[in-house]
Amino acid sequence: MPTTNGHVKPGRSEVYSEVQISRLKVSLPLPSVLKSSFDVVDGRKSSAAGNPDEIAKLFPKLFGQPSVFLKAGGSLTKQSLKIGIVLSGGQAPGGHNVICGILDYLQNRAQGSTIYGFRGGPVGIMKCKYVQLTYEFVYPYRNQGGFDMICSGRDKIETPEQFQQARETAKKLDLDGIVVIGGDDSNTNACLLAENFRANGLKTRVIGCPKTIDGDLKCKEVPISFGFDTACKVIHSWKEYYAPRSIFTASRKLATVSFMKGFHSKSFYDMQIYSEMIGNLMVDARSTGKYYHFVRLMGRAASHITLECALQTHPNIAIIGEEVAALKQTLKSITNYITNIICKRADAGYNYGIILIPEGLIDFIPEVQQLLAELNEILSHDVVDQGGAWKKKLRSQSHELFEMLPKAIQEQLLLERDPHGNVQVAKIETEKMLIQMVEVELENRKKEGKYKKDFKGLPHFFGYEGRCGLPSTFDSNYCYALGYGAAALLHSGKTGLISSVGNLGAPVEDWTVGGTALTSLMDVERRHGKFKSVIKKAMVELEGAPFKKFASMRNDWSLKNRYINPGPVQFVGPTSKVINHTLMLELGSQA
Amino acid sequence: MPTTNGHVKPGRSEVYSEVQISRLKVSLPLPSVLKSSFDVVDGRKSSAAGNPDEIAKLFPKLFGQPSVFLKAGGSLTKQSLKIGIVLSGGQAPGGHNVICGILDYLQNRAQGSTIYGFRGGPVGIMKCKYVQLTYEFVYPYRNQGGFDMICSGRDKIETPEQFQQARETAKKLDLDGIVVIGGDDSNTNACLLAENFRANGLKTRVIGCPKTIDGDLKCKEVPISFGFDTACKVIHSWKEYYAPRSIFTASRKLATVSFMKGFHSKSFYDMQIYSEMIGNLMVDARSTGKYYHFVRLMGRAASHITLECALQTHPNIAIIGEEVAALKQTLKSITNYITNIICKRADAGYNYGIILIPEGLIDFIPEVQQLLAELNEILSHDVVDQGGAWKKKLRSQSHELFEMLPKAIQEQLLLERDPHGNVQVAKIETEKMLIQMVEVELENRKKEGKYKKDFKGLPHFFGYEGRCGLPSTFDSNYCYALGYGAAALLHSGKTGLISSVGNLGAPVEDWTVGGTALTSLMDVERRHGKFKSVIKKAMVELEGAPFKKFASMRNDWSLKNRYINPGPVQFVGPTSKVINHTLMLELGSQA
Repeated sequence: MPTTNGHVKPGRSEVYSEVQISRLKVSLPLPSVLKSSFDVVDGRKSSAAGNPDEIAKLFPKLFGQPSVFLKAGGSLTKQSLKIGIVLSGGQAPGGHNVICGILDYLQNRAQGSTIYGFRGGPVGIMKCKYVQLTYEFVYPYRNQGGFDMICSGRDKIETPEQFQQARETAKKLDLDGIVVIGGDDSNTNACLLAENFRANGLKTRVIGCPKTIDGDLKCKEVPISFGFDTACKVIHSWKEYYAPRSIFTASRKLATVSFMKGFHSKSFYDMQIYSEMIGNLMVDARSTGKYYHFVRLMGRAASHITLECALQTHPNIAIIGEEVAALKQTLKSITNYITNIICKRADAGYNYGIILIPEGLIDFIPEVQQLLAELNEILSHDVVDQGGAWKKKLRSQSHELFEMLPKAIQEQLLLERDPHGNVQVAKIETEKMLIQMVEVELENRKKEGKYKKDFKGLPHFFGYEGRCGLPSTFDSNYCYALGYGAAALLHSGKTGLISSVGNLGAPVEDWTVGGTALTSLMDVERRHGKFKSVIKKAMVELEGAPFKKFASMRNDWSLKNRYINPGPVQFVGPTSKVINHTLMLELGSQA
Repeated sequence: MPTTNGHVKPGRSEVYSEVQISRLKVSLPLPSVLKSSFDVVDGRKSSAAGNPDEIAKLFPKLFGQPSVFLKAGGSLTKQSLKIGIVLSGGQAPGGHNVICGILDYLQNRAQGSTIYGFRGGPVGIMKCKYVQLTYEFVYPYRNQGGFDMICSGRDKIETPEQFQQARETAKKLDLDGIVVIGGDDSNTNACLLAENFRANGLKTRVIGCPKTIDGDLKCKEVPISFGFDTACKVIHSWKEYYAPRSIFTASRKLATVSFMKGFHSKSFYDMQIYSEMIGNLMVDARSTGKYYHFVRLMGRAASHITLECALQTHPNIAIIGEEVAALKQTLKSITNYITNIICKRADAGYNYGIILIPEGLIDFIPEVQQLLAELNEILSHDVVDQGGAWKKKLRSQSHELFEMLPKAIQEQLLLERDPHGNVQVAKIETEKMLIQMVEVELENRKKEGKYKKDFKGLPHFFGYEGRCGLPSTFDSNYCYALGYGAAALLHSGKTGLISSVGNLGAPVEDWTVGGTALTSLMDVERRHGKFKSVIKKAMVELEGAPFKKFASMRNDWSLKNRYINPGPVQFVGPTSKVINHTLMLELGSQA
């Protein structure tokens, strides 16, 4: 609680900054449907995102249950509840507000409820490690970043023994429900837990909470009134933006299931903070006139953040992993692409620029995957001799690629391996690798007289410093509604749903609230001869409007400098409500 | 100019973000002395920061001239002027506002004036490359970051030929004055130029403009009414904070000349943006509970930024280069210091933390300097044999140190050399080196049973992405006043002064305005047998209140987590005027 000197001394031993305190004091608005009594209305019977027969077998109790939405009217029981909450996976700004939403719902609608926060993620459920969440305990985390209230973890509840442990915890604490706040894996796990509890006759229900859901999900399951306002056009555009990895498989029909991986772990704020940094680098590049900034952005599985930041800031080059894979590009062709633009810019008088690269770029390059597979195979059996005789075991294409790599990268591949002896792709600093490869290629062109400038590449990685920032006004409100809605779903006896808040372009009071059947998001993957349920990772859709917009503008951006500097996140004043000015402007006109 | 759709399409080809536009529209306040007519009042005859006899010889025309201050009253000529402006050295948020201030002064007080912006730094003066600065041209840069309006450069006007070129430009453009906006080197150059012009009978006067000056300068030269308000206590504290490099030399008397190197190239905004990022990492560390974030911060010559950010955010460890040098610490002792704290934190249940390191750390470690000198000597004559026989030429202490370095650093020292064959210290990623050295030391302790956790160090470098950000409200106002004042000094016929704005803790209208004799800041260094004038670099003063405060609190910070997350820079609302909450709180009470 704020003390007289304006400081908070809660469970957190830290001192709060002025901005943190100002955010703490900001009240959180609710969608109007959550402000009064409501009915929970069932939609149609649901199916699965793919392979419904297999999903039905894996979830016999839950498969087919309808998604629901909340509607004003009715009267809910005032029965008090015992609820457990768990944060699962990587942090995202707003996670704390989901918890605040759950607490406030129970305080307002189910007085006398008891709320437990499981410590350190799902392992807290398994080991029954928890803290009781009171208003006083939770208050200092309102509108604050991070997951540090109860901390998070990446464990999963998978084995029969672990499910047994979870059931014991649920019984011991006499839980009516558990809310799982997390990404696709965590929500898959939430669904398995819901099924397991029901199959074992436990009263404990499970509701998932995504940090963000894209429009498509709601279009299918929740009545959204279209006619988005300007801000909504962003949300709307995401429908086309996010599609599952299916573009790389035969199952194009999955394209409607676009539960967004990118936005599970990344929120508006991150985009804003990364875009701010990129914008600053643009001003720096333009001011000094001599640096190429190579910026690696988070996103191992998909290139959402790179695309989003590109649309927000207009870099000279942005590499989108999904396109690299679709076009089967090589490291050489990517290097040439970058080098070509650098040479053209030099001709136009520009010896500087900004290049965005997704963290997971290497994973998208087929030839690199092939090389890594061969390396892992060779290294597991053979000794790497100084003379290089071992290289003869590489296929010729892989050998050629290996020789093309900068020496430091070669050594990294050979020397730094994980405990299983595998090459550690994650440790490769892609931006540095590309700088070195571009340097070599530019040297070649210099010899040919095709390039005359001096190239200075500066590497950057924007990652951890963004994901724990103070949530923006939008993130704060959205997450609060998700939590409030999740508690409402539990209170009305629901299980196996994911809290769904829609119509996000409208003012908060007009947002829709409901729950989507988790099984409806599922498909199966075959692992070790068995089907396993998964929520597919959402990939950048190359046919979607945002990528198309990017593709249509990138030539212009590459040679002219159409830089945008978004500036720092503002919480007050005219710019505080701007969610995404650029994407909105760019894509709004065609909506 | 803003067009109807709220966008600016000026010389800049970029689109402006909402936040940029909102900043563009903000009007800039002036100190009241600049709002009406004023007299320019001379102070006492000045001397030099050191070796006044030598300075008198180097600046026969300018030496001894008094500093001045502006006082309400009087009436200035309305005579129009021809003025050139140059941006020199690294960018800092607010540079554009200095130019806006100059323009607005001339527009208001010397109508019909002509203003030239030299392109790309001092080379623009030598080659007479310029653009005419009109209100329309300059307007889009108001309150915007970077130096991209006319760009900057690091050239110096040094040789007789170069001074000749400068005189030719001054004559060709019929210049009444030049304003040099830059750091200590640039202002030394401004003083040389002023002397040269006067000695050659040119009418062209020269005024320097620092991006920030610390209190001490004004205390000596400009009447400052003490009784600073809360914000001012920060400024006040800097007096003790910034002292010249003299702490490492015999000339302690230089301690009063604290023209701040740190604040020439770094401003409030940078501190805020770095502190925001560090604060986010703190929340991240606390949330995940498994990372030690090693953050390298800009500051090659001094550790101001590291100290400032430490006071703002309360990291577990911050290494201050000036202390390392004063205590003659070794790389080994620094490694042990960090490792000890990590072990103690592990005992206390914390397997995470935040460690701040100044970019120039290596330059402060005497034994490393010795090793580098020996390496440069050996490498210039000998071939590095694979067997390592060359190492026998190292002194035993240097040999030991070399062997202690991580392999990657060893290779970097041997392989990556500059065109002169010298080891490239600047390329060493200090944060990675320390992570690797701590890893080794922790492995040793594990074997001794003194450490049981798994250590994961994550490297970060916060540099370029901060220095071109949107200037904060303070930076915007301060720089505008500096520019307005510089034009006033030129208009009143002054030369060889540096624009000085003081009483910064008070409301803008009460700020003082004046000019300090550049020669009074000078000392000499002996180079190639000749005396050369220099403005000494300001170092962190180990006897100053800020370092003492840090020193008194760091043990507490190291084991407990007193993290502060300052959040993003706010331009509007209650927190927008917070310059430096923490330092203020910490140090205010003792002022």
